[in-house]
Amino acid sequence: MVKRKSLIADTCPSARSLDVIGDWWSLLIVRDAFDGLTRFGEFQKSLGIAKNILALRLRTLVDRGILETRPTEGTPSREEYLLTEMGRDLFPVMVALRQWGERYLFEPDEKRSRLLARDSGRRIILEVKTEDGKLVGSSDTVIEKVPDDANP
Amino acid sequence: MVKRKSLIADTCPSARSLDVIGDWWSLLIVRDAFDGLTRFGEFQKSLGIAKNILALRLRTLVDRGILETRPTEGTPSREEYLLTEMGRDLFPVMVALRQWGERYLFEPDEKRSRLLARDSGRRIILEVKTEDGKLVGSSDTVIEKVPDDANP
Repeated sequence: MVKRKSLIADTCPSARSLDVIGDWWSLLIVRDAFDGLTRFGEFQKSLGIAKNILALRLRTLVDRGILETRPTEGTPSREEYLLTEMGRDLFPVMVALRQWGERYLFEPDEKRSRLLARDSGRRIILEVKTEDGKLVGSSDTVIEKVPDDANP
Repeated sequence: MVKRKSLIADTCPSARSLDVIGDWWSLLIVRDAFDGLTRFGEFQKSLGIAKNILALRLRTLVDRGILETRPTEGTPSREEYLLTEMGRDLFPVMVALRQWGERYLFEPDEKRSRLLARDSGRRIILEVKTEDGKLVGSSDTVIEKVPDDANP
């Protein structure tokens, strides 16, 4: 692993988020948890990674408050892993990654999984807008930085 | 680095996206590019990483179509790095990460940078909804998988 500067004290919320969930495995585990997976063996089968690596990643996600454990129904000696509210609130991140992947990483007629509304079956989309409802792109926005004297 | 299974043939668009941009450095470089940074030295100062690592990450982002290079104005022997359309379309991912970080990784009164509309100064928000405009959370949605026979 490359040694890196920690961003947990950074004043940019995106940087702090990446510090907490910005590795490939963490986000894939979160994706599988959204998909209903709860057991160690299910994650292992889905991700195809070594057990020791998976155990470490799951432990990190629990420590960071993104997953929580509870005894498995019927097999209480085994734990299962569930998204916390903090974890479930990563939903827009997953939707944004999915939307970008759909646009750029598939051929137009290529088979892909789809995210749909449970009740209506309609497609899910994501919009970035101002708090009064105007759609915006990156060039319509600006980052207001924290003044240096507030960020020693 | 941990050896991993490639997800570039996965039928889940989120998984493919993570395969392409799901490492910490790549997304931080993209964040800095949205913030207007273009030069090698600017990224290096912002990220505090070794030059050889940064050079490798920038090259990967160019190879994947997220950044492109052009000669720097006034110093054409030097390249600068700009987001492509594919790169700019990562904007919702950055906004989603920012929104989550604001909610969970800052104290209520802690100083943070803010993302605002350039013209009105209003705050930027992100909404996940059905294509006909109904707001949804993760529990309102379902993944429609590609049938196994279409995904050998």
